[in-house]
Amino acid sequence: MKRYSDMTKDELRAELSAVKEEYSAASRGDRKLDMSRGKPNPAQLDLSMPMLAQPPSDLTVTRKGTDVRNYGELAGVDECKELFADLLGLKPENIIMGGQSSLNLMYDSITRALLLGVYGGSKPWSQQGKLKFLCPIPGYDRHFAICQEFGIEMISIPMDDNGPDMDLVRQYVESDPSVKGIWCVPKYSNPSGITYSDETVRAFAALKPAADDFRIFWDNAYLVHGFRDEDEQLLNIFDACREAGSEDMVYEFISTSKVTFSGAGLAVLAASENNVKFILKQMGVQTIGYDKINQLRHYNFFRSADGIRQHMKKHAAIMAPKFDCVLMTLQMEIAPLGIASWHEPKGGYFVAYTGLPGTAKRTVALCKDAGLTLTGAGAPFPYGKDPEDNVIRIAPSYPDVNTLGAAMKLFCICARLAALEVLLAE
Amino acid sequence: MKRYSDMTKDELRAELSAVKEEYSAASRGDRKLDMSRGKPNPAQLDLSMPMLAQPPSDLTVTRKGTDVRNYGELAGVDECKELFADLLGLKPENIIMGGQSSLNLMYDSITRALLLGVYGGSKPWSQQGKLKFLCPIPGYDRHFAICQEFGIEMISIPMDDNGPDMDLVRQYVESDPSVKGIWCVPKYSNPSGITYSDETVRAFAALKPAADDFRIFWDNAYLVHGFRDEDEQLLNIFDACREAGSEDMVYEFISTSKVTFSGAGLAVLAASENNVKFILKQMGVQTIGYDKINQLRHYNFFRSADGIRQHMKKHAAIMAPKFDCVLMTLQMEIAPLGIASWHEPKGGYFVAYTGLPGTAKRTVALCKDAGLTLTGAGAPFPYGKDPEDNVIRIAPSYPDVNTLGAAMKLFCICARLAALEVLLAE
Repeated sequence: MKRYSDMTKDELRAELSAVKEEYSAASRGDRKLDMSRGKPNPAQLDLSMPMLAQPPSDLTVTRKGTDVRNYGELAGVDECKELFADLLGLKPENIIMGGQSSLNLMYDSITRALLLGVYGGSKPWSQQGKLKFLCPIPGYDRHFAICQEFGIEMISIPMDDNGPDMDLVRQYVESDPSVKGIWCVPKYSNPSGITYSDETVRAFAALKPAADDFRIFWDNAYLVHGFRDEDEQLLNIFDACREAGSEDMVYEFISTSKVTFSGAGLAVLAASENNVKFILKQMGVQTIGYDKINQLRHYNFFRSADGIRQHMKKHAAIMAPKFDCVLMTLQMEIAPLGIASWHEPKGGYFVAYTGLPGTAKRTVALCKDAGLTLTGAGAPFPYGKDPEDNVIRIAPSYPDVNTLGAAMKLFCICARLAALEVLLAE
Repeated sequence: MKRYSDMTKDELRAELSAVKEEYSAASRGDRKLDMSRGKPNPAQLDLSMPMLAQPPSDLTVTRKGTDVRNYGELAGVDECKELFADLLGLKPENIIMGGQSSLNLMYDSITRALLLGVYGGSKPWSQQGKLKFLCPIPGYDRHFAICQEFGIEMISIPMDDNGPDMDLVRQYVESDPSVKGIWCVPKYSNPSGITYSDETVRAFAALKPAADDFRIFWDNAYLVHGFRDEDEQLLNIFDACREAGSEDMVYEFISTSKVTFSGAGLAVLAASENNVKFILKQMGVQTIGYDKINQLRHYNFFRSADGIRQHMKKHAAIMAPKFDCVLMTLQMEIAPLGIASWHEPKGGYFVAYTGLPGTAKRTVALCKDAGLTLTGAGAPFPYGKDPEDNVIRIAPSYPDVNTLGAAMKLFCICARLAALEVLLAE
């Protein structure tokens, strides 16, 4: 196989004609392949079915005697707070058990900040005119959608294999009081799969924001989602903040949506004691408490942070072959052509495919026409606009391995076709 | 027994001295009686334990094949929407299954209206300067707390046995565009226990608000919570609205917090199709969906609206004797003295005791000192301020009947003592 950049126009034209034939042969309108979202496969959901088989009598009373079937305990069941505090390297006082959707917790954190303000802030965000958020790119579309919904201007921050460009982050955060937050997926990031380096985490902790109400939204969604023998280690940002005296600057979010059940698991907000107390006071107006039966159900199933980590090994056994399939197909079909790059993630749910400029939308459209749904091109960018139109998020989790193999073959044909069109148009 | 108003000062003084002795005898610092909140008794929670004993295999797939363990279905599981639509006399298209707390749904409805606006409104509430809500009194303290949190001015509206003073409501709503909403608990209202008359419901439906974004917050919390043979009938406000062409004006809220488990049940937002579509678009930014496993769990347990009504008969069997105890004690100990009035509710969770002006705080304080916690005096009023200081919310559900008997005896002693103090000070 020859690199496309080394081909003459005639060679490119011949290759295009060959790839078009491959595409015709592979296209099937009746096919319905879906790699659009980071949804677990049913086999992964099956792993947690024993959690639903607990005798009802195990789901009534906490260690200290609280009836989980009744009102109360806004911050959540003690043993559950301890469980997640342990997992996060924090204290139970840092934990709010917040329902079943970490996205909901993030959204609510933004609406509270907008309408009521945050701990230490002089007034609510919404009373301060223009608001801005920093958005490391590529990133998570649902983060960006929250900013867009509330008219918060998004500023893209480039990322490399160590995380966001911290010089740029520092420049914005420390000079502009209208910069109120930054979205981070610091481990096995969505979609590029990289883990922030210790230096990056320390640079976050060392920020001296111009705003008195700036927050780092630390969406640690893939905390326990390594699927290789070696798990990448993310520095505990609160440890770094403690050294820098900046603990109040961080909201950390996790959920078990990709540990137990998606949308029926537990979500956690972790923060400094100052933040937790302040938030609970606001949260107490919103609800009397979240689902404590589900909290106890999860606690009984895991018992300890190590219980969660052991459980995740079963997920890893399902996920690893899927990533192998994606990465091997890309390695074989695309790498020799020199038309794209990607990070090989050791965890998380995605591979970010970076092709030639101007090929992402076209590739996704070609896939769509051939029966394969991908995440929309542009989705990993603020306002859905990929400036280079070259990043595609690949989500291998939902299909089974055989389907995934077919889908990836089709993807590579489409990617080649789009690349050839661009090269021939030059 | 002689009416206190017929007593001479000397007789009142003698009575005070006698009641003080009763109080001393009944006071016990070590006692801990609690009638402060509308919490179900564990025996009521036990009624739904079979719901938790379902085999896990029943908790995986909906009728149409949706895996409830995975992401999706923002508006909820179809069969659950049908169940509650049937209960409310609506269509599934009118239903959003919204988590486990109707309070949370109401709060979120307010924050969405503040930041984003409502269907048909020209701009978000928060961009319109001063905002007002009408608050029929006595009412639910957690409703009022939401308004207070967001600086929404509360205007008290007197109620009688037919519901709020609709002339006053009409006057405010139809003349003042800053009036954005009204809080209603239309059936077995919290705390007075009255059910709005058909005429009142029709008057609501006939409102022609000055604001283009006014909403009735119809908190039908006690919809199926009758505990007598005869259940009071609340006119379906959406039927009345359909006649008046005002369906978009109403948000109805219900939950199973006092049907299955408090804080671990299901909450429902019912509204016109216009509202539902508009809200789902906003809600889709907040979350991917609520807990569908719990939705299917509830559906399997009830199967039909009639299943819910049958289940509520078991609650009624527990609640009725408690209300008998409260009402009989008041009838025997207080009625002959002519110092208070109350409605005898056929459902719901509360009795509103209306004593002589200036006695509520004192009565609650006397109870507290003697070991009985009541809802704070003033709680059923905006800003916690009872203008007459004479309404006390009695919540009989949590204690068992024996404890309740002792608590009510103590309550009556305290109420008499407070009344005598006021009468003697005149």
